[in-house]
Amino acid sequence: MHITSNSENTIAAIGESELIRSIRKWLGPVAPPAPAGMGDDCAVLPPSVQLQLITTDSLSYQVHFDDSVSAENAGAKLIKRNLSDIAAMGGQPQHAVLALLCGPDISTDWLELFFTGIRSTCLEYKIQIVGGDISALPAGQFSAVLTLFGTTESARLRNTAQSGDWLYVSGTLGGSIIQKHWSFTPRMQEGRWLAQRHECSAMMDLTDGLAKDLNALIPEDCQAALDLPQIPLSADALIRAAQTGRSAMEHAFCDGEDYELLFTIRAEDPGIFEAAWAQRFPELKLSRIGRLRPATKNGSYVNAQTGEAIPWIQGYEHLTKP
Amino acid sequence: MHITSNSENTIAAIGESELIRSIRKWLGPVAPPAPAGMGDDCAVLPPSVQLQLITTDSLSYQVHFDDSVSAENAGAKLIKRNLSDIAAMGGQPQHAVLALLCGPDISTDWLELFFTGIRSTCLEYKIQIVGGDISALPAGQFSAVLTLFGTTESARLRNTAQSGDWLYVSGTLGGSIIQKHWSFTPRMQEGRWLAQRHECSAMMDLTDGLAKDLNALIPEDCQAALDLPQIPLSADALIRAAQTGRSAMEHAFCDGEDYELLFTIRAEDPGIFEAAWAQRFPELKLSRIGRLRPATKNGSYVNAQTGEAIPWIQGYEHLTKP
Repeated sequence: MHITSNSENTIAAIGESELIRSIRKWLGPVAPPAPAGMGDDCAVLPPSVQLQLITTDSLSYQVHFDDSVSAENAGAKLIKRNLSDIAAMGGQPQHAVLALLCGPDISTDWLELFFTGIRSTCLEYKIQIVGGDISALPAGQFSAVLTLFGTTESARLRNTAQSGDWLYVSGTLGGSIIQKHWSFTPRMQEGRWLAQRHECSAMMDLTDGLAKDLNALIPEDCQAALDLPQIPLSADALIRAAQTGRSAMEHAFCDGEDYELLFTIRAEDPGIFEAAWAQRFPELKLSRIGRLRPATKNGSYVNAQTGEAIPWIQGYEHLTKP
Repeated sequence: MHITSNSENTIAAIGESELIRSIRKWLGPVAPPAPAGMGDDCAVLPPSVQLQLITTDSLSYQVHFDDSVSAENAGAKLIKRNLSDIAAMGGQPQHAVLALLCGPDISTDWLELFFTGIRSTCLEYKIQIVGGDISALPAGQFSAVLTLFGTTESARLRNTAQSGDWLYVSGTLGGSIIQKHWSFTPRMQEGRWLAQRHECSAMMDLTDGLAKDLNALIPEDCQAALDLPQIPLSADALIRAAQTGRSAMEHAFCDGEDYELLFTIRAEDPGIFEAAWAQRFPELKLSRIGRLRPATKNGSYVNAQTGEAIPWIQGYEHLTKP
């Protein structure tokens, strides 16, 4: 189904009030009534006894998706990419507000399917959409911005790793363009479990590629000594390598949209942690990809076996020239 | 200054990392460091003992502003229109997250001035920008979405008015296109004061025009009997009337972007409330514009003197045909 329409099935044809009524219907149980939901100037929510987590992310037509992507997948992705941020702090998602920016010719049939993807994902992860905004854009344009709230007893940050900590990654990396960027599972349970393990010293999610994201976990005066044979290459990284002529390892470092957890473990013997992971998450691959150590002149990422610099340092760049 | 640039002063030329560094510099004291601010997967904030308020609003180039508007005014407006929603609940603003959606050719000089408007408004209202997101759009496009959080001990809702309640509006209405849509003061102190007055039975802010917004305050089976001579026509409504040939009263009902408070007072003698207002806010006009009463066949808005239907029922419609 196309995102725009020439017929009467457009948001301009039905108008703002009818569109809001439709959105409430499409969201169903995911949209509570005011004051805890849509319908007043603000959503009014109870006090929070835990730490509060806030993240925001957007999804735009012709940038993050095109006509080859189903509306349901687009809606689901908007929720899941925000969920991955909550997971990376060890949090539990709670509620969200959604800003829609729509050209007048956006199809209401397409939008209904977009909200079907939002609703099913919100139901699965127990999130409520408590408010939002609809505003106009020129014809043919569509963006959605979701701000998601969560709570946690103990947040895991990015900047709390130290020299000597072991580096781990969940799942497999690379080749997300084949399917993972539309079909991924935010690592909610794993993130919450890790935030409760005292050995977990820092955590983040991988969205722009290991090559770019790993920098954020490395303390000043440290480097990551990487055990390249342990980098978990996905089957899709191998497929991409055959398509592009670049190595599967380069795809694992640079592709982005892995939505896996990257974290550090502080332990004399990391085997105890690994055994606990294997018992709790027997089906999700865990890879010990290296260790933090004092920096050398060879840069932030080095091959642990040779000490030489690793060539893949460029992840996904969001802002590129026209 | 133009929003786009052909030179090297564009966001694509400096790239994402440098842009984020620049934004932190531009925001200065308004942007705390992670974990309470930007820099991790989520912002981490302390528990809240009061009720929490959430609102979200957007601002798009070529829709909400064009090249005739200064970047500072555009940035300030994004904050203030959200503040007006917090005011309408009787809340105190606290922090916000900002999603930017930018074409590659957006000028960094323009963006610096946009953030100057954001910073000065955040400083004035004691708001911190605790997180955000930057994502790409096609060339020439720019949108910003702000999600603002506040707290309150006692929220004033829209749907709690009753028959017999008096209708009030702060300030003056109409003609916002002359200047008010870029130069207005969200009614923060007034909103908080009203939320603490037991007589105030319902409240909202006027953004789409009295004609459209008043509906939200009228209970089912009621109508608003309006005292037309008491509708506070702004000087700009009179100027617009001279330009358009329509009446100043029509402009006061239908123009939108008044950012005044519309509220109801439940009292035998409204004079006591009016005297308290005059003492607390001697410089802000208060108008008792009518009263809620059981519905007649003449519709939701009637002339209190004649009982006849009032002809202006259409406010600002956000979604219109191309």
